[in-house]
Amino acid sequence: MRGVYAPILTPVTESYAPDAQRLIAHGHWLLENGCHGLAPFGTTSEANSFSTAERMETLEQMVDGGLPAAQMIVGVGCCAFTDTVTLASHAAALGCGGVLMLPPFYYKGVSDEGIFRAVAEVIERVADARLRVYLYHIPPIAQVGFSPALIERLISMFPQTVVGIKDSSSSAESLATLLDNFFGFGILAGSEGLLLQNMRGGGAGTITAMANIIPGAIRNLYDNWQKPEADQIQADLHVMRKALAPYPVIPALKEIMARRWDDPAWRTVRPPLVGLSQDVADELAANPIVADYLAQPA
Amino acid sequence: MRGVYAPILTPVTESYAPDAQRLIAHGHWLLENGCHGLAPFGTTSEANSFSTAERMETLEQMVDGGLPAAQMIVGVGCCAFTDTVTLASHAAALGCGGVLMLPPFYYKGVSDEGIFRAVAEVIERVADARLRVYLYHIPPIAQVGFSPALIERLISMFPQTVVGIKDSSSSAESLATLLDNFFGFGILAGSEGLLLQNMRGGGAGTITAMANIIPGAIRNLYDNWQKPEADQIQADLHVMRKALAPYPVIPALKEIMARRWDDPAWRTVRPPLVGLSQDVADELAANPIVADYLAQPA
Repeated sequence: MRGVYAPILTPVTESYAPDAQRLIAHGHWLLENGCHGLAPFGTTSEANSFSTAERMETLEQMVDGGLPAAQMIVGVGCCAFTDTVTLASHAAALGCGGVLMLPPFYYKGVSDEGIFRAVAEVIERVADARLRVYLYHIPPIAQVGFSPALIERLISMFPQTVVGIKDSSSSAESLATLLDNFFGFGILAGSEGLLLQNMRGGGAGTITAMANIIPGAIRNLYDNWQKPEADQIQADLHVMRKALAPYPVIPALKEIMARRWDDPAWRTVRPPLVGLSQDVADELAANPIVADYLAQPA
Repeated sequence: MRGVYAPILTPVTESYAPDAQRLIAHGHWLLENGCHGLAPFGTTSEANSFSTAERMETLEQMVDGGLPAAQMIVGVGCCAFTDTVTLASHAAALGCGGVLMLPPFYYKGVSDEGIFRAVAEVIERVADARLRVYLYHIPPIAQVGFSPALIERLISMFPQTVVGIKDSSSSAESLATLLDNFFGFGILAGSEGLLLQNMRGGGAGTITAMANIIPGAIRNLYDNWQKPEADQIQADLHVMRKALAPYPVIPALKEIMARRWDDPAWRTVRPPLVGLSQDVADELAANPIVADYLAQPA
């Protein structure tokens, strides 16, 4: 799995149920506008705010809605390894190209040995040769993560299955360490801001929240990273993330979706997240970068 | 719900399934040896390492095994409010005396408003007059917690339902703030080390990991907190926690169970936790306080 992947936002109804119709439409738009694939049920998708049953049903609706499973890296990591087994088995059986696996994240300060056992238990129980695992390293939120020694151990034990990592540490140093140590591993930057560094270091692409709104611009960098203008493209790409930085990212992205498509239903987020207040939403929309984006034809 | 509650350890089989037989036996022993009740599926029970289906099935087995639901405060808080609804509805329908509710804990830095909405959504969806919610404040692990302003708001909105809190911040200052602000609320200290402070301040008791092994000693303090010797009892009670402090508490407690009952099966913990190595286990058992405990007839 190489390229630009969107951790696709999960629109929800007024009663907070996943809204499959809007989700499928957004998925098709993303694939037609720059994304190589989708990463349903990532952090930006509010994945852990949904039950395993809700996640599986929604994923099936996406596939039924014509979104290609082979181009999906599906979030599956839960606190209970048995839940992760359920979701990963389901995704593999549906033909999803990969799964994105958070470590169990309730207990803090757990050992590499403990995380290893949890991931190994999942892989052994899924017991499906089609399973392709991308480790999901996002210490700012999960607090628990994958150390280089643990990654090494998982690759040696499951070389056909553990094929990559999403690094959402937002740290150029962390990404450099991965690129130095795991050449040929499917390293996906967790931010489009590190995409150029990642591609120059032999990485595979990016799974980034911003791909929900600017997939084409990110794809442009991916397609042209070897060109002389790549540094400029990377610098230009940074402006949208910077514009959104003062706001909680998921409510801000949903606010932008609501305005861009003139569809207020997009504003709803699932508790414990909260949508932007009218004042804050107006302030966001008045940011020149955002205003320019919203003024473009959708 | 007043008194001494054990967040009962969940024994598991070699394949990490909940071991209902050992769990039920342990529950009866706790109730016969000092506990007023049980708090199944708390942090010490490895609750979040089990799926909702595993948790519900096991709770039913406990009730079928003769453990009184009315004397249970059952852990129900998950990242997805829909899972919390499932577990809380189930516990209320079974007649459990209360539920212990973690806030959604995946996203960090969420607002009081967001946590309020999540808890309110659960209470409204469960829609069962029997539901009694104890908020579960454990910032060292969940990272997300209940501020005094949020507690106040939940009590005003749901006075018949939100009836207490377990404070596992391990902070005397935090407990004092709760006691000062919420007189009459069911405040349960998350450590037996703060039980005397809690009772003197009008609190309701304790839910503490240590009740798994020394329920009688904790009960002794609860029964005698108004006596002149209470300070000495509290001081004496501290020695077991101090003896276990260098070790991960759940593996250490399970190690002690295995040795006390000469039952190695008790050692198994669910990933991402890891049992103590032989060396560490021997070191723990050689601690004079632990050795003395293990030498007593079980």
